[in-house]
Amino acid sequence: MGKIILGDQILERSDVNIDLEDRGYQFGDGVYEVIRVYGGELFTIKEHIERLFQSAKKIKLDVSMSSEQIRGLTEELVKENGVDFGSVYMQVTRGAAPRAHMFPKPESSTKAVFTAYTNEVPRPASLLEKGVEAITTEDIRWLRCDIKSLNLLPNVLAKQEAADSDCFEAILHRNGIVTEGSSSNAYIVKNGEVITHPANNLILNGITRQVLAELCKENGIPFIEKEFELIDLQNADEVFITSTVSEVMPVIKVNGETVANGKPGNITCKLQGLFEARINQDTKVEI
Amino acid sequence: MGKIILGDQILERSDVNIDLEDRGYQFGDGVYEVIRVYGGELFTIKEHIERLFQSAKKIKLDVSMSSEQIRGLTEELVKENGVDFGSVYMQVTRGAAPRAHMFPKPESSTKAVFTAYTNEVPRPASLLEKGVEAITTEDIRWLRCDIKSLNLLPNVLAKQEAADSDCFEAILHRNGIVTEGSSSNAYIVKNGEVITHPANNLILNGITRQVLAELCKENGIPFIEKEFELIDLQNADEVFITSTVSEVMPVIKVNGETVANGKPGNITCKLQGLFEARINQDTKVEI
Repeated sequence: MGKIILGDQILERSDVNIDLEDRGYQFGDGVYEVIRVYGGELFTIKEHIERLFQSAKKIKLDVSMSSEQIRGLTEELVKENGVDFGSVYMQVTRGAAPRAHMFPKPESSTKAVFTAYTNEVPRPASLLEKGVEAITTEDIRWLRCDIKSLNLLPNVLAKQEAADSDCFEAILHRNGIVTEGSSSNAYIVKNGEVITHPANNLILNGITRQVLAELCKENGIPFIEKEFELIDLQNADEVFITSTVSEVMPVIKVNGETVANGKPGNITCKLQGLFEARINQDTKVEI
Repeated sequence: MGKIILGDQILERSDVNIDLEDRGYQFGDGVYEVIRVYGGELFTIKEHIERLFQSAKKIKLDVSMSSEQIRGLTEELVKENGVDFGSVYMQVTRGAAPRAHMFPKPESSTKAVFTAYTNEVPRPASLLEKGVEAITTEDIRWLRCDIKSLNLLPNVLAKQEAADSDCFEAILHRNGIVTEGSSSNAYIVKNGEVITHPANNLILNGITRQVLAELCKENGIPFIEKEFELIDLQNADEVFITSTVSEVMPVIKVNGETVANGKPGNITCKLQGLFEARINQDTKVEI
């Protein structure tokens, strides 16, 4: 894990301890981001840090640092830790204060707690080529999934349900409407169109999702944001998910049933190629 | 705050640090309880610890301690810290492990992290006599509110909304159906009947709520578990909330409108008396 950012400092892990009364620990009162590192270069860092601030704003959390400061520290951390292919996890909480649901009063001088650390994570090359299996399960989350908050217990339970079935992801649905994966966005391809849930309060508008929308636009692939149902998932020509760490990941089986011919679809593969080209272009790293 | 329980030990606060990768900190992956202390005696401790284990079971969390062990340590802590009128906060998380949504694998030997501490909290005598004001706001929580989990961000936001209006509590509604308060159960009294939301997945079945149901039964007061709407709240003869720390708390204004004549109602006051008698009886403490 190497060194860690705590506030505006880069410290040894052994020097970083979280307070028992940190509101992140007692209420999940905070927000987070995961940023991908390719060959030492941070991909879409600007977008991720922007979203961190957006999430914070939605829960009225003052990050107490500037985005430039966070970006500078993050770049320094990746360098110091010598990360090659990996990720940065960062979170900010409302700080430590005597436990009470309401925000700490300004006069208490409670300060947000920002932490970040790195991991080495290879690209999931084999899975990207072969595809993964998914289950579907009920989306029981709160009604502000547009906030990337630390309240992730339903996501944890859904992911574990997938793991219990030896599956990579749980695709969630609310009354039969597919929203997204437990830690990814979900898509179907039907008659050449890429279809995904609108970016409203019921999903997290992934940075990879946003890049994908751009790539589709630039390459004349229809990118349709509309609701679709479990039955559409079953009858799709292609299914895939996207996330920062998993990129554009083909889904070849859902609930044990093969999607179409059970192989990654043409449009999915095309989008993988376009996404890799974008990574190369942005990071100047040959992945 | 005094000493703190960490696992099976009672330690100085300065010796208790939470790991950055504790799943409580990154996912809110844990459950908690708050237990009332009256004159040094723990009230309904058995019921609270039982519910802690029920919540843990619902998220497949192995507490790694027995209820007897937790009870023994808690009683010792209250004594060591010399708590008179106060509370014990306890929580258990799925422990520290490299961040991944799915549960840590058994072979990783990740162990649940149990912590508990005490606070001095006087009984809210003046508020119990005069009553409090509440707002109503949308219930945006997940669909497993029966689990007393650390995913409390929507509760935090609702409570802050109440505080912003100088109110004590936010009473939540889902599409117009009143569920409960942000940190309490909610009730109306109409034509001599106490009415509250059924104890299903949409509310937390409070220990005070359970005691109240018994007291109603013993004293011939109808205790009806059924859905009621915002309009019923507006037209109620009496409104009150219950919680471990606030006991049976009259609500005299909702969204700025007085409830009935704006004074704590007869049945609410009767229930307060019965609840106090139960405290006296159970703890042998004259409150």
